[in-house]
Amino acid sequence: MNEIDQITAALIKFRNDRDWAQFHNTKNLAVALSIEAAELNELFLWKTTDESEQVDAQKIQEELADILAYAFLIAEKHNFNVKQIVLDKIKKNTEKYPVEKAKGSAKKYNEL
Amino acid sequence: MNEIDQITAALIKFRNDRDWAQFHNTKNLAVALSIEAAELNELFLWKTTDESEQVDAQKIQEELADILAYAFLIAEKHNFNVKQIVLDKIKKNTEKYPVEKAKGSAKKYNEL
Amino acid sequence: MNEIDQITAALIKFRNDRDWAQFHNTKNLAVALSIEAAELNELFLWKTTDESEQVDAQKIQEELADILAYAFLIAEKHNFNVKQIVLDKIKKNTEKYPVEKAKGSAKKYNEL
Amino acid sequence: MNEIDQITAALIKFRNDRDWAQFHNTKNLAVALSIEAAELNELFLWKTTDESEQVDAQKIQEELADILAYAFLIAEKHNFNVKQIVLDKIKKNTEKYPVEKAKGSAKKYNEL
Repeated sequence: MNEIDQITAALIKFRNDRDWAQFHNTKNLAVALSIEAAELNELFLWKTTDESEQVDAQKIQEELADILAYAFLIAEKHNFNVKQIVLDKIKKNTEKYPVEKAKGSAKKYNEL
Repeated sequence: MNEIDQITAALIKFRNDRDWAQFHNTKNLAVALSIEAAELNELFLWKTTDESEQVDAQKIQEELADILAYAFLIAEKHNFNVKQIVLDKIKKNTEKYPVEKAKGSAKKYNEL
Repeated sequence: MNEIDQITAALIKFRNDRDWAQFHNTKNLAVALSIEAAELNELFLWKTTDESEQVDAQKIQEELADILAYAFLIAEKHNFNVKQIVLDKIKKNTEKYPVEKAKGSAKKYNEL
Repeated sequence: MNEIDQITAALIKFRNDRDWAQFHNTKNLAVALSIEAAELNELFLWKTTDESEQVDAQKIQEELADILAYAFLIAEKHNFNVKQIVLDKIKKNTEKYPVEKAKGSAKKYNEL
């Protein structure tokens, strides 16, 4: 079993042991993920860019793990292959952000 | 190279080809991730739980891929092992949510 | 002094008493607002639509107050007239969502 | 009719003309608000603090108006008096963040 399947299996076991699948519809999982994303952001709130890099790695790690957990659960629910969907998106973005136009620019594709 | 390392290598190549590392401080990456999380939520906005399960899988896949991409980039920046941090968090949550208390309940650990 | 000016004056006094203007750049205020929005959402997480209407009003009130506080602070920073900008947006949305097309539909304007 | 009541009346009229009250349960309104908050944040994404202050005011105004609209609709749904709930929260925060401890500090109340 590959790495992501192992992580997903651990998440599903944790969930099923608690009978929580009943709460894990896609809409709820997406809200849960965005709440965890806000908790990650809260670690850097009011801090400068530099100060943000000094935040306790343990705290970042835990919030990021929560985000990843919900992301893997959504992927599992929809039978997405995580590697494939990220590589597909990179391919799509390669067209939206051609190197010659996007290099060094933070502009959105529709403003390039 | 394992799966997550392969995904991360593809993300880093895409980024470096565009000279975007300069924008990818942790604070910015966290905001970017939360914006993508909101775009995922927008797919289900105003929809019932059931209607949300009927949303075009291609759209979900693309928003989820964006979220995963930023999550992997944050992990890479901090040298986190994705598998390890999720398994660590599951372990921690196993203590916060003991099966006998949490089974079938959607309550937060501090209300169990 | 009208109502919104009174609220804003109280917020500015609270802030200046603490010398917090230094942290309140627009980018930070926007992140702060989105974190408070996530805290509001957390009150309804895993709950059905009906259960969400039973959530303690005091909790909703406090999270909503935090959101409003940051919204008023952003408006003050940019010298926006809150009433005017909301009425302007309603006018714009009246064109994007004409009654005959939008009535009873939850579709986004570009899908109507 | 005071200012906030006028804004709210305009929002309710816009909504009722389109028969949208059916979608506006509290859970959905809270998600909608957080999506608009993310759109506000997107205006500043990848930008420095200084660059963020140069963003087109018209764009900020429109995203902020969307946030305020949902905040006022949630307040209306729960019969909250906007002025009162913000003043109540300021009072509460005055106790959580006493001037002598909080002055010049961006720390959260539980770390002061």
